[in-house]
Amino acid sequence: MIYFLDLFGVTVFAVSGALAAGRKQMDLFGVVVLGMVTALGGGTVRDVILDVRHVFWIADHTYVFVALVAALVTFLAARSRKPSWTMLLVPDAIGLAMFTVIGADKALSLGVPAVVAVMMGVITAVAGGMMRDILSGEIPLILRREIYATASLSGAVVFVCLFKLGVNVDICSIAGIAVTLALRLAAIRWKLSLPRLFVR
Amino acid sequence: MIYFLDLFGVTVFAVSGALAAGRKQMDLFGVVVLGMVTALGGGTVRDVILDVRHVFWIADHTYVFVALVAALVTFLAARSRKPSWTMLLVPDAIGLAMFTVIGADKALSLGVPAVVAVMMGVITAVAGGMMRDILSGEIPLILRREIYATASLSGAVVFVCLFKLGVNVDICSIAGIAVTLALRLAAIRWKLSLPRLFVR
Amino acid sequence: MIYFLDLFGVTVFAVSGALAAGRKQMDLFGVVVLGMVTALGGGTVRDVILDVRHVFWIADHTYVFVALVAALVTFLAARSRKPSWTMLLVPDAIGLAMFTVIGADKALSLGVPAVVAVMMGVITAVAGGMMRDILSGEIPLILRREIYATASLSGAVVFVCLFKLGVNVDICSIAGIAVTLALRLAAIRWKLSLPRLFVR
Repeated sequence: MIYFLDLFGVTVFAVSGALAAGRKQMDLFGVVVLGMVTALGGGTVRDVILDVRHVFWIADHTYVFVALVAALVTFLAARSRKPSWTMLLVPDAIGLAMFTVIGADKALSLGVPAVVAVMMGVITAVAGGMMRDILSGEIPLILRREIYATASLSGAVVFVCLFKLGVNVDICSIAGIAVTLALRLAAIRWKLSLPRLFVR
Repeated sequence: MIYFLDLFGVTVFAVSGALAAGRKQMDLFGVVVLGMVTALGGGTVRDVILDVRHVFWIADHTYVFVALVAALVTFLAARSRKPSWTMLLVPDAIGLAMFTVIGADKALSLGVPAVVAVMMGVITAVAGGMMRDILSGEIPLILRREIYATASLSGAVVFVCLFKLGVNVDICSIAGIAVTLALRLAAIRWKLSLPRLFVR
Repeated sequence: MIYFLDLFGVTVFAVSGALAAGRKQMDLFGVVVLGMVTALGGGTVRDVILDVRHVFWIADHTYVFVALVAALVTFLAARSRKPSWTMLLVPDAIGLAMFTVIGADKALSLGVPAVVAVMMGVITAVAGGMMRDILSGEIPLILRREIYATASLSGAVVFVCLFKLGVNVDICSIAGIAVTLALRLAAIRWKLSLPRLFVR
């Protein structure tokens, strides 16, 4: 079930990367690269920092194929009918929630301290999107958009705290996913945002 | 022979990084950094993802000196006579072909699955150039230019497939290099390109 | 003492990242992320390339808390009174000098060759600032600004050379820090810069 939702997150992120590439009129290869980087980038940064022996998509290359196919299908589909970012918002929120919990869980299973596990949850969830924006020449949206990474951070904190309190890992996961998803959907619905800093 | 061609690739990529820095009016240090990042960046990303004990330029720092000298010579030469991108095109295609095969070969020797070896070939060949473009404030050219990374991808697929079929590694290498080079040179000659995606 | 100065460097870099985020009107989360990436990014790249088992801020998460608090305090303080880049220049020079010597020292302790240790000193000192600039959509300043990375490079060379000559490590450290700091402060005071390259 978790595995299925993880692949769902990979698919959604690959589609968002492919659409971002289309916005910049990239060619087929650019669309595939941006899709794969968005889908696999966050987990790769997490695994490299944690010095895992085999990065997740080397250990199980289903992830590579899923991201590849998702980007290719997006390329074909987007040429025939107009895609829209808004139909991606809810699936993207689900992907964000899944990646947060999976990232934090993997870090905890490697025995890192709680604060590092929280950071790894957030990195897994948002680093792919940051790479997508950098490669398409934009300032990463998550650094200034309505509550996005903050939803991931909240979910990661809930997951890690419950886990450290000895709660069953399935319940921790559900709670972490629910908090991330609820915050993100609330932010979309009511256009919530964090205070900004203005430096001249 | 492979080693010599590898160093040739490092030299060409260092020159292309140094020239890109000159386009942005960077100073001597910027020219050297951009030259070294372009030349060594792709292999570094490959080795970090594969969790190799010693990144290639730590294991053999000839690479560092070659990249450094190439960037410095470019700096001096480019101040006295006008450089031109076009004279770099053919050497760059050779570098692309070498890095593709060397990257895929190193990945295979570490026992990763075929699809990962193909990705590592492409990453080795193109990640340095992507970093060059990001550091000089451009959207990476390879994501939208005429067939470039696609040539690398094709060469990597040929190399890995032949290798998996049990063909002698020297013949695999020659085939992979030839395919990459032929596709890239054909793309330059006839301005071939992949279809693009336009998203509003 | 070194540890204290290291944390001082982390603080200064976190503040500089947070102020850069404010210039781009990022929200609270963006300010924290940019502060932490600037403060911890250089050492992370060093540790990942050197394949260290535990990245420094996983081994000792004091660094994480210091960077987090520094970014949060900057956020609060910068909303009430006007911050100024110029008051950061001298602390930033101290951070640069500390990170250079600490990075080169860590690399030497892992037994890498001298040239790699020099590169690691420079990477530790400047990679965080480069990430800050890329994430805020700027061409990294250090690639074209007045002598900055060059000060770090000089300090790293002095440190590594003295160390290889068998000089006591404390004296090497003081010499490396002094050279970096002197060059950087001289560059600020007299607006020194390196020659540039202009390619059309």
